[in-house]
Amino acid sequence: MNESTLNGVVAPVLTPFDEHGQPDAGRFVAHAQRLLDDGCTGLAPFGTTGEATSLGMEERRELLDALVEGGVAPARLLPGAGSCSLTDCVLLTRQAAQHGCAGVLLLPPFYYKGVSDEGIFRFVAEVVERVGDARLRIYLYHIPPQAVIGYSIELIGRLRDAYPDTVVGLKDSSGDWQNTAAVIEAFPGFTTFSGSEVSLLANLRAGGAGCITATANVNAASLRALFDGWRSDAADGMQAAITARRELIQSKPMIPMLKHIVAQRTGDPGWLRVRPPLVELAAADAQTVLTSLAA
Amino acid sequence: MNESTLNGVVAPVLTPFDEHGQPDAGRFVAHAQRLLDDGCTGLAPFGTTGEATSLGMEERRELLDALVEGGVAPARLLPGAGSCSLTDCVLLTRQAAQHGCAGVLLLPPFYYKGVSDEGIFRFVAEVVERVGDARLRIYLYHIPPQAVIGYSIELIGRLRDAYPDTVVGLKDSSGDWQNTAAVIEAFPGFTTFSGSEVSLLANLRAGGAGCITATANVNAASLRALFDGWRSDAADGMQAAITARRELIQSKPMIPMLKHIVAQRTGDPGWLRVRPPLVELAAADAQTVLTSLAA
Repeated sequence: MNESTLNGVVAPVLTPFDEHGQPDAGRFVAHAQRLLDDGCTGLAPFGTTGEATSLGMEERRELLDALVEGGVAPARLLPGAGSCSLTDCVLLTRQAAQHGCAGVLLLPPFYYKGVSDEGIFRFVAEVVERVGDARLRIYLYHIPPQAVIGYSIELIGRLRDAYPDTVVGLKDSSGDWQNTAAVIEAFPGFTTFSGSEVSLLANLRAGGAGCITATANVNAASLRALFDGWRSDAADGMQAAITARRELIQSKPMIPMLKHIVAQRTGDPGWLRVRPPLVELAAADAQTVLTSLAA
Repeated sequence: MNESTLNGVVAPVLTPFDEHGQPDAGRFVAHAQRLLDDGCTGLAPFGTTGEATSLGMEERRELLDALVEGGVAPARLLPGAGSCSLTDCVLLTRQAAQHGCAGVLLLPPFYYKGVSDEGIFRFVAEVVERVGDARLRIYLYHIPPQAVIGYSIELIGRLRDAYPDTVVGLKDSSGDWQNTAAVIEAFPGFTTFSGSEVSLLANLRAGGAGCITATANVNAASLRALFDGWRSDAADGMQAAITARRELIQSKPMIPMLKHIVAQRTGDPGWLRVRPPLVELAAADAQTVLTSLAA
């Protein structure tokens, strides 16, 4: 994997589905390229926003191949490689390393609850050892609202100590800024992203790397402007506008709402589809947000 | 899939690993055959106890093939086919149906939390439609302690109404006997298993189907005796002894403790291995339970 930095605004790319409910590689690659054009510094396909856990193993691998073959630079890619299964996590991680991706975003194995830090450490260690690729860079994906289990400060430290050249960063989707701040403070040089743009300015002021946030799918230019101008006098005002926009979007179920916005932008209603267990959002429910965003 | 009943004592088969951490088909098939010899009426490989979510897609498929090729009757098999991914869930379910298994045990798609009954309904419905095999029988796997989301009474009713010949039963691992009792009462003719033998007698008296329980890996004969003799005067005493044994075993982490008991019984320390995120149990910790069980 490349040494280039992803710092800034990383989009967890939405996954489109065709009329048969299959992942649509054409729409996916076009959307990814559009996000880079919009100013994203990186792309994190196969995250929570991308309905990654709803995709099959083969589907995930084919979509990553499609991105690279479609011309998206691997140095800009941070694919989610998480799986409850060590075996499948290794397959996904190895593929990303072989493509020369900037890194992988790694969920903890999220089925069993109440597991020990030792158990999660062994899982990550085994991924590193089995992949056995010096190019590998791992960004820990801490998202207790979905995974329930997560990466404690102690565990992050232990993983960094064991694999300093490999375990290089974290996305904090805990929704708890105090936790993000504690990680940034505890581990200088670690690449720590906020999981929401609501704390983008705070993250940058504290020495963090930026954000990996769902709304980058529809709001990348504004986020990039704040990243580029966070030291300016306008920064607080920019953050306030960004936060207001976020609150508007998240007043509805996030993933279906984002797909409505992309459908509107592209004029392509095919973007509205989601996979079970998610349910699409009725047009009338989405319209109130679309109207407010346009205002 | 076959019409034969699994009623009684079903073992969620433990999964052994070899010295390289790979699933060990030889030990697995031998253990499955031993469990049927011990009196199990059915086997549920690839459940929580079997570390199924820690296995790769190919590993799960190869192990099911190995069981059938190893001579375990498909009519006795209720493999777990759950996955967060609709695509992979369909692959696993189709394989089980094609083997003529008695049914599949189906976790809800457990990554996203707070999903609607409608979303889970669509997931199961899509599995039924995509597999499209009249032999398919689905047993819903309700285990909120791990999956967090689950099958509500209303959702069970809706799935039964939509697919009366396919959605035929449930394993209730909620740990809440009142919930199990409510399912049995609400749905006469539904095959409702308790997820623990602690409520085996209560389950049978209420009209349930028996239990699918981790400890059947090491205690099948006693459980079968209660199933065969639940109408006898000795039943309450048998239940009390079974419950005491359960409480002893679950005083330690369940899966590693069960593997110690199997290792002792078979004289094969290879049985002690677990996959991350689980961690094996130290011999000294297991010994206190082993000694008490022997007493």
